[in-house]
Amino acid sequence: MLWGGRFKKELHPRALKYSSSLSIDIELILEDIEGSKAHAQMLAKIKIISQAEEKELLEGLTQVENDWNDGKWKPDPEKFEDIHSAIESRLFELIGETAGKLHTGRSRNDQIAVDLKLWVRKKTETLQELIKNLQLTLVEISSENLETIIPGYTHLQRAQPVSLAFHFMAYVEMLERDLLRLQFLKNSLNQSPLGSGALAGSTLPLDRDFTSSKLGFESPSQNAMDSISDRDFVLDMLNTCVIGMMHLSRLSEELILWSTKEWNFIKFNDEVSTGSSLMPQKKNPDLAELIRGRTGRVYGNYISFASVMKGLPLSYNRDMQEDKEPLFSSAKIYSESLETMKLILCNINIYKNRFNNELSTDSVLATDLADWLVLQGIPFRDAHEVVGNIVKTLEEEGKNFMDLNIDVLKKFSPFFNDEALKYLELTSSLQRKKTKGSPNPKFVKEQIEYWRKKLRH
Amino acid sequence: MLWGGRFKKELHPRALKYSSSLSIDIELILEDIEGSKAHAQMLAKIKIISQAEEKELLEGLTQVENDWNDGKWKPDPEKFEDIHSAIESRLFELIGETAGKLHTGRSRNDQIAVDLKLWVRKKTETLQELIKNLQLTLVEISSENLETIIPGYTHLQRAQPVSLAFHFMAYVEMLERDLLRLQFLKNSLNQSPLGSGALAGSTLPLDRDFTSSKLGFESPSQNAMDSISDRDFVLDMLNTCVIGMMHLSRLSEELILWSTKEWNFIKFNDEVSTGSSLMPQKKNPDLAELIRGRTGRVYGNYISFASVMKGLPLSYNRDMQEDKEPLFSSAKIYSESLETMKLILCNINIYKNRFNNELSTDSVLATDLADWLVLQGIPFRDAHEVVGNIVKTLEEEGKNFMDLNIDVLKKFSPFFNDEALKYLELTSSLQRKKTKGSPNPKFVKEQIEYWRKKLRH
Amino acid sequence: MLWGGRFKKELHPRALKYSSSLSIDIELILEDIEGSKAHAQMLAKIKIISQAEEKELLEGLTQVENDWNDGKWKPDPEKFEDIHSAIESRLFELIGETAGKLHTGRSRNDQIAVDLKLWVRKKTETLQELIKNLQLTLVEISSENLETIIPGYTHLQRAQPVSLAFHFMAYVEMLERDLLRLQFLKNSLNQSPLGSGALAGSTLPLDRDFTSSKLGFESPSQNAMDSISDRDFVLDMLNTCVIGMMHLSRLSEELILWSTKEWNFIKFNDEVSTGSSLMPQKKNPDLAELIRGRTGRVYGNYISFASVMKGLPLSYNRDMQEDKEPLFSSAKIYSESLETMKLILCNINIYKNRFNNELSTDSVLATDLADWLVLQGIPFRDAHEVVGNIVKTLEEEGKNFMDLNIDVLKKFSPFFNDEALKYLELTSSLQRKKTKGSPNPKFVKEQIEYWRKKLRH
Amino acid sequence: MLWGGRFKKELHPRALKYSSSLSIDIELILEDIEGSKAHAQMLAKIKIISQAEEKELLEGLTQVENDWNDGKWKPDPEKFEDIHSAIESRLFELIGETAGKLHTGRSRNDQIAVDLKLWVRKKTETLQELIKNLQLTLVEISSENLETIIPGYTHLQRAQPVSLAFHFMAYVEMLERDLLRLQFLKNSLNQSPLGSGALAGSTLPLDRDFTSSKLGFESPSQNAMDSISDRDFVLDMLNTCVIGMMHLSRLSEELILWSTKEWNFIKFNDEVSTGSSLMPQKKNPDLAELIRGRTGRVYGNYISFASVMKGLPLSYNRDMQEDKEPLFSSAKIYSESLETMKLILCNINIYKNRFNNELSTDSVLATDLADWLVLQGIPFRDAHEVVGNIVKTLEEEGKNFMDLNIDVLKKFSPFFNDEALKYLELTSSLQRKKTKGSPNPKFVKEQIEYWRKKLRH
Repeated sequence: MLWGGRFKKELHPRALKYSSSLSIDIELILEDIEGSKAHAQMLAKIKIISQAEEKELLEGLTQVENDWNDGKWKPDPEKFEDIHSAIESRLFELIGETAGKLHTGRSRNDQIAVDLKLWVRKKTETLQELIKNLQLTLVEISSENLETIIPGYTHLQRAQPVSLAFHFMAYVEMLERDLLRLQFLKNSLNQSPLGSGALAGSTLPLDRDFTSSKLGFESPSQNAMDSISDRDFVLDMLNTCVIGMMHLSRLSEELILWSTKEWNFIKFNDEVSTGSSLMPQKKNPDLAELIRGRTGRVYGNYISFASVMKGLPLSYNRDMQEDKEPLFSSAKIYSESLETMKLILCNINIYKNRFNNELSTDSVLATDLADWLVLQGIPFRDAHEVVGNIVKTLEEEGKNFMDLNIDVLKKFSPFFNDEALKYLELTSSLQRKKTKGSPNPKFVKEQIEYWRKKLRH
Repeated sequence: MLWGGRFKKELHPRALKYSSSLSIDIELILEDIEGSKAHAQMLAKIKIISQAEEKELLEGLTQVENDWNDGKWKPDPEKFEDIHSAIESRLFELIGETAGKLHTGRSRNDQIAVDLKLWVRKKTETLQELIKNLQLTLVEISSENLETIIPGYTHLQRAQPVSLAFHFMAYVEMLERDLLRLQFLKNSLNQSPLGSGALAGSTLPLDRDFTSSKLGFESPSQNAMDSISDRDFVLDMLNTCVIGMMHLSRLSEELILWSTKEWNFIKFNDEVSTGSSLMPQKKNPDLAELIRGRTGRVYGNYISFASVMKGLPLSYNRDMQEDKEPLFSSAKIYSESLETMKLILCNINIYKNRFNNELSTDSVLATDLADWLVLQGIPFRDAHEVVGNIVKTLEEEGKNFMDLNIDVLKKFSPFFNDEALKYLELTSSLQRKKTKGSPNPKFVKEQIEYWRKKLRH
Repeated sequence: MLWGGRFKKELHPRALKYSSSLSIDIELILEDIEGSKAHAQMLAKIKIISQAEEKELLEGLTQVENDWNDGKWKPDPEKFEDIHSAIESRLFELIGETAGKLHTGRSRNDQIAVDLKLWVRKKTETLQELIKNLQLTLVEISSENLETIIPGYTHLQRAQPVSLAFHFMAYVEMLERDLLRLQFLKNSLNQSPLGSGALAGSTLPLDRDFTSSKLGFESPSQNAMDSISDRDFVLDMLNTCVIGMMHLSRLSEELILWSTKEWNFIKFNDEVSTGSSLMPQKKNPDLAELIRGRTGRVYGNYISFASVMKGLPLSYNRDMQEDKEPLFSSAKIYSESLETMKLILCNINIYKNRFNNELSTDSVLATDLADWLVLQGIPFRDAHEVVGNIVKTLEEEGKNFMDLNIDVLKKFSPFFNDEALKYLELTSSLQRKKTKGSPNPKFVKEQIEYWRKKLRH
Repeated sequence: MLWGGRFKKELHPRALKYSSSLSIDIELILEDIEGSKAHAQMLAKIKIISQAEEKELLEGLTQVENDWNDGKWKPDPEKFEDIHSAIESRLFELIGETAGKLHTGRSRNDQIAVDLKLWVRKKTETLQELIKNLQLTLVEISSENLETIIPGYTHLQRAQPVSLAFHFMAYVEMLERDLLRLQFLKNSLNQSPLGSGALAGSTLPLDRDFTSSKLGFESPSQNAMDSISDRDFVLDMLNTCVIGMMHLSRLSEELILWSTKEWNFIKFNDEVSTGSSLMPQKKNPDLAELIRGRTGRVYGNYISFASVMKGLPLSYNRDMQEDKEPLFSSAKIYSESLETMKLILCNINIYKNRFNNELSTDSVLATDLADWLVLQGIPFRDAHEVVGNIVKTLEEEGKNFMDLNIDVLKKFSPFFNDEALKYLELTSSLQRKKTKGSPNPKFVKEQIEYWRKKLRH
């Protein structure tokens, strides 16, 4: 035990069980060892320990790491409060009394802060890689679907024709924002808490610059009390997971819709589908559903930890131990979901011509027709009214846009002429778009080139 | 695999990993076997299987249960989608082909619904027991502290004197509401989903009344589609955990405050305290902090699952698999926290006279003095003003209520007489309370008797 | 001001602005007056005030109420802390000094607790009425759609044929649980907080039984401190709103899906649709989208208030003022959404035959076919495999269930005979269901009768 | 109405009431007009409208703005769906038919996206100013309290002596992170959605670069569909409010604790305190409690909107209307709370010597004593044990650190000598700290200088 001196009785077993975090914070074992090594080297540098002791400590710590990696050692959650205690105890077994010098000038408060920051930093990098992979997948599918015309929806009602490429490239933009948010988070992890002690630094001449630099930080933190009380980066990570998963949940919803019999636009391969234990014909988009569902979990994790931190007086309170489960859970769900989404996208069949006929009759070009009227000098609000009347009348007569000809059009507005009819052709409709960022294949292709280059560099 | 027929390729290993719930829903193993036994007996009753087959199935299921309890069998999460698949597969190993008859007329959709309801029902009973234990602990401590005078607070400012008994009995009331909420939940679990199939019942003549009664439900559910889509009881359980933990978090906060040097009202025994790895003198109220912190986790779990269910079309969607982790997590935290709170309360030393002197000088009897003026016929608003002026003046003069005498009082209001001075005596102040539900020891004692009798019967 | 006596300076205007709740708690004006009247009558009964004063107070309070109802008086949020202060101040204007007697033996702490309980009680009744109205609407639409065959979905994939009646009756069951939850809540509001004072009752002989009974409670609360600290009923109400809105969000999602071009199953009337400012042809299901969206708001309200209460020491803390905005917001959203959903359902056109042809070819009867094999003695797991193979083969050959005949079937299993073919007929498929709670029109009709009777009594 | 053409019937009044957002999005009136002006200028530039029409539109829009500012015009929420409709309708009244040209090539979808981005951008700037003001207040109070010794706490137990300056400077660090998070958010608002149309751009040659630059964006957005579906910046703002308020809630909790009778460290001025309607002596820290409480509200707002966005298919859905209430509510609470916290801090009296005597006897220097032993070559773990024993023994004997002398010390370890006693002096304890970021007044003073310079430049 790391704190026995003043106590006469041991912690009640039920109390240890309730309070031990080892089964969770074992996740931090490598970061904890990395931090301890830097600390040991620093203690030698300032001559609090000898070079021989430094060597012992470093070798001992390496041994702990190897034993863990090789499965030779696994600490028992019933015996230790946390990963720090477990490692120190193991170190005693391996190298004896010198182990007792490692904790000099260090508290578990600054130790856990540095562990967590190292862990989050590493995770931001992994997530950025996974995001890029998914972006690249989307870019590649897009490049094959520049002219796959599908309805663009608002309110889930068909609105205007777009291409699947255009639709998927929207997700590339979203993912890029997720990546930048991770970059902001990573940059904000630039101060080392090590050397902050329990909350007030130390009377020992600890070289905080040394450990900071050793562990890849820009500088030591400026205020010890803030340094060990700060979990902002955890909340920022949880927020990053919320927004990232929200994006994936939207794509999942669409894949689920598209794979229904009603939409009938894509089909999942067997490798990413499951069946029913009762209904022999079923083939279900479970993976997309799970991504959508786990988004809810990630939402809850954010609230879990935000609630923990509310109204806590400075500096460290044991409540803060509850940062780990939400953090690890959200990061795991997010990274696995990014991988899984890529797996799904690589396993769908796209019925590229699914919407061609239907869209021709579907009045999705109504806006273009109104725009054409505007070009003839009609105020837009009037043009909108005219085309709205056309739609209403066709509907009443059981007809559709394909039934329009110049005579019919002229009944609604004398300004119509033959040119207007061209605006009702689906196939050239994308090409008629004039604005940057529109589904005009010219613009989408430029985007694809831009992203492909950026992602592959 | 429970659904292979129509598939040509197996699920991708990464897809299985992402989708398997076995490591979580193993928690339901006993309920799943209980449900399967009832189903097997029903199949025999309606002669879909023979009596010999029924016997085989029941013995096989008992074997699975025993092997699990004895640690002889543990299903591999990398191989199975869920607990249902794992058990069916094990049954095949044990009894061969007959195992294939168990799933007749049953879907995993109604199976999981019945498993979860059985699990929640059992859990409501456990929680009710734990709540009663904690109530009893509070009642007993209260009975020893009927005259332990402490400040009652509003806004964390001393407001009026109360007793510790009165204060703790407030928690007994809160806990009773938690218990009633659990009772409502338990009562609402009265309909059996079994026999609802995937969503639409069955063409087989399943006897739903039989399984319903066998499993302790009042009746089969009335609508199969609702029955397999319904997770209201999970949200109600999560809400119950939120409110219950909120109560425990308030008591935790108070125990933490009371154990500070500043309050100095209670001391935790060593068995429920921990120390610091750096600071040798520290003794921390970790358990109370953890209860307060884990309250945040339980909040997050509620949102996790509420988010999962939002906007899901009927009937079953795989998203709903994410009901289990929040449910199991919250129920575990809540039950362990109830036990831990009892452990803490049995391990505190109370400094019963801590506040006696301080409260005499603390103007906490100002309200009583104003009430006395009211009894002389002064409108309360004026009486409040008079006593407010006394407090302000004393404060300015660096004096307190002990410095008041009849001459001083008369300067503030001519109505004061010697009787008023009695209203400034702390020791008799509780006895002067006239209203039911007040800290008058007479009333508190009655409450204690009432609860003691109720809890022990 | 209700508390000026001991203060030398007034509250800073910015502080008043930040802290005033009047613009929100004005919602409680009628309940506050009702509580004050009961309190005044009680003060007269115990002779703290005279009968003449009682009359003055009651008439004054009635005047305040009338002036408010008539729009003659509206308190200024810049001047008063809360509704209690505003009313007391108005009373002074109307009846002079006697107003100062109303607050005798009462604190804003017990006053607001009683106001809120009265408000919530009233709201539970309103909500129950609205729920019943919506249930009745669903029952009536169901009665006209007993044989409107639609696909039942799991994972949003077509699973088995059901009727629209069966589908809508699932919601009647959900709504009934919402109603029972409200009933539990209403029953739990049975104790009057009035007479609890600030936290510790009173030295005045207040007759709590009198006010309790006057205000329609069963009894006074048992512990004054709990009574003014308790907001469990607010959280229970917020949870009720969460689950209720979650149900409505599911129905909204379905209505949105059904009204897409892809589903093409229902059409909204103009009265409940909106258009696009840009796209002339659009007709959007905005109301259903808003119900789904506002469900998110109600989720947030739950967390808002649960977070407020976490870790608050007893008894009243000003944080608790933040109970009102979430409570009023959720109750308003919920009640308006219930009304709006009814409005929507009364304004949809149902294309009753939409799915008839498609479902015949859609292998949604695969389960029934497997069940038939079971009746011939085949283990279900094998039957499932056989039918799975049929589905796979048909799909490979570009065929469907309509292409099956006895010769084809026999290739998959020798047990098939002519009777099996009957199990492939869509029109009689619902009638073949044997289980209670299934979509067999016989059972659904019984449910409809049951609910109609219950709701109309 | 902006979309009447194809409709035969008007929206049901209850439907309009349920769906109108005008009472909320009136907040965006200035941004909406700003966006419309840029759009009008662009339409003239590309010659869709004439210069005369441009002038009419611009003057009309200015008139609307002036009328609003002067209180001459206020749109009726019962009549209009939203702020866009209200302004367009007003414009018709003011300038007639030309108003109908403003909406050319623009949808409410890109319009609201640009409005919201402009609003959030402005708000980030306001918040940054408020944060800097609060930082400066903290810096100034710190500069006066460099040697005000207070206990630093962990687990709310006294841990080590620090200064109030050191404690408050921790908050300056936190606030800086909040400021950087706002900066990240502001930087991420660099792409103009205007010209994205409903979701797919336009067939009109809109000059998106022109409007982008006019409105202060870096460039137009790259994908129209993403551009109108994106609300990431709203969630990022809501997260910023959560973390910022969490910080303020921690400081509030401390101010509440410090102002208790038990802590007795600070006193609030009357201007920032309120009293009790019942208890004449009360003086409550309401403002700090409200900041703490409203933190809960801000938490809920995050969940509200995250829930809204989950699983929404692209592109715009009406659910997204529910972004405004959470966004406006959180931004308002956050900015008002920053101001209020500053007001509080400027109105507290600090009892600078409150802890001097107590800390001398409180074993808060135990860590320093252990560190001293380390300097003599004792392994830290042993030194910790030795000092732990001292604490335990003193406690048993009813003594404290002031009772230690060299003879007593030597009983615990032979290494102790007279120098060790110096480590028990409170007054010089801060000066003995060697590490950067510690409460050594030398380091804290440097921090103060750094921040003062930075904040005042």
